[in-house]
Amino acid sequence: MERGCPPEAERLGALLRRSREAKAAAYCPYSRFAVGAALLTAGGHIFSGCNVENACYSLGVCAERTAIQKAVSEGHTSFKAMAIASDLEDDFIVPCGACRQVMREFGKDWDVYLTKPDGTYVVKRLEELLPLSFGPEDLRKL
Amino acid sequence: MERGCPPEAERLGALLRRSREAKAAAYCPYSRFAVGAALLTAGGHIFSGCNVENACYSLGVCAERTAIQKAVSEGHTSFKAMAIASDLEDDFIVPCGACRQVMREFGKDWDVYLTKPDGTYVVKRLEELLPLSFGPEDLRKL
Amino acid sequence: MERGCPPEAERLGALLRRSREAKAAAYCPYSRFAVGAALLTAGGHIFSGCNVENACYSLGVCAERTAIQKAVSEGHTSFKAMAIASDLEDDFIVPCGACRQVMREFGKDWDVYLTKPDGTYVVKRLEELLPLSFGPEDLRKL
Amino acid sequence: MERGCPPEAERLGALLRRSREAKAAAYCPYSRFAVGAALLTAGGHIFSGCNVENACYSLGVCAERTAIQKAVSEGHTSFKAMAIASDLEDDFIVPCGACRQVMREFGKDWDVYLTKPDGTYVVKRLEELLPLSFGPEDLRKL
Ligand SMILES: [Zn+2]
Ligand SMILES: [Zn+2]
Ligand SMILES: [Zn+2]
Ligand SMILES: [Zn+2]
Repeated sequence: MERGCPPEAERLGALLRRSREAKAAAYCPYSRFAVGAALLTAGGHIFSGCNVENACYSLGVCAERTAIQKAVSEGHTSFKAMAIASDLEDDFIVPCGACRQVMREFGKDWDVYLTKPDGTYVVKRLEELLPLSFGPEDLRKL
Repeated sequence: MERGCPPEAERLGALLRRSREAKAAAYCPYSRFAVGAALLTAGGHIFSGCNVENACYSLGVCAERTAIQKAVSEGHTSFKAMAIASDLEDDFIVPCGACRQVMREFGKDWDVYLTKPDGTYVVKRLEELLPLSFGPEDLRKL
Repeated sequence: MERGCPPEAERLGALLRRSREAKAAAYCPYSRFAVGAALLTAGGHIFSGCNVENACYSLGVCAERTAIQKAVSEGHTSFKAMAIASDLEDDFIVPCGACRQVMREFGKDWDVYLTKPDGTYVVKRLEELLPLSFGPEDLRKL
Repeated sequence: MERGCPPEAERLGALLRRSREAKAAAYCPYSRFAVGAALLTAGGHIFSGCNVENACYSLGVCAERTAIQKAVSEGHTSFKAMAIASDLEDDFIVPCGACRQVMREFGKDWDVYLTKPDGTYVVKRLEELLPLSFGPEDLRKL
């Protein structure tokens, strides 16, 4: 897997587009805050997700985790990049702490594209978003 | 949607098989308790899921919720039946309370097939598994 | 511990009152749905809780779980009864599936008092609220 | 509230001690990874918590969130510092992403003391642990 090597332009374009499209399926009757995410696997597949809320708010789940769960359930556990899209016009949408931790389960060294509806983005390494993280190897230290 | 009408034999067979197959992708290094689930939509599609655990245990998710999130993220929110599979030889595997609540978000009137590895099962209405439930309509009462 | 034996009138009155009072501390700027809970331990202590929501909805927690976590963190893990209170005038407030599962971690045989603001209630055994449940002993079967 | 002003030595000593003591109540039969946390409110109160796990792993909760929920349920929502303790001899224990997000609900500008069993610690601002965070004000932008 070529971590550290950004997806080439065409693939990145597809990733960003898929995150925007995924937003359309968001089930968010409570927050009305639709989010889409697209996940690029090491093998070049893209899995997308949206938020899926619940009347018992704590049982909802974010777009980013939905995308990861889809990929894992299809046999993929090595990832290169995630793109996230929302309807916030003036902010690059960021993942919540729970999603950062779920991403981190599958490695610290991949990219997260934070986008705006106008197509602009900033990219961060997961490690920048969740510094000093706890992970699978820490459980084994006890 | 023909709720109350059980899936015909062939479709049910596929649903049960898909729940067993989905178990193979379980990411469960912490519990070593692999679970698979398969969800039949009102339109006849099947979506499968597995558990996806996390070093921070509370950030893991069950097979049933993975299957629902996959279906919702692909545009399906009306469901007929869910089948669940585990490696417990002597017990019909049941969904946890969180999964029952996530299922219930999408209606009370559908079937849950609790299976054993030998292919036998019992079927329950969701309402039997989560009686006196809280749901979307309750939030609107305030 | 005298499970199966209902709390005597005075203690029950205190439990119901504490669940109503606990509601006042609810941090629920997102749902505006305040809930209070009070938990009676086997030793006769009462611990109360409220819902504590989060801008990332899935990171919120219910009143019932807050009460249980408080009790456990103070060294209590054996419980007799839980009372739940909300502002729903016309419904006895019920616990969500996640809370039922968290209650069930500490036994199947205890009482849940579902109340209305007018002080009336219905009482259910936890097993009635979460039939056919998965619990700690099931994990050990694999 | 004097954010930015570290707790004086005596109070900090109490906070660190309470996080270690809280660990004793940890209910962690699944991970066997006991964690304690202590939370200092703006008014000078200390609330402590431990992890409370569940057979359905995803329904467990961390020590840090337990401490916050206790404080909120007792009417406190303004915090100055959190201390975290575990049995990891060689690492300063860090909060998971979910806990960082729950802390952040109540402000970005407070301190987290990451400790070792030998009593040494490092201190981080919450903003250093969860940079570029999503919070309550972001929900209001839509
Ligand atoms: Zn998230
Ligand atoms: Zn579950
Ligand atoms: Zn609940
Ligand atoms: Zn945590």
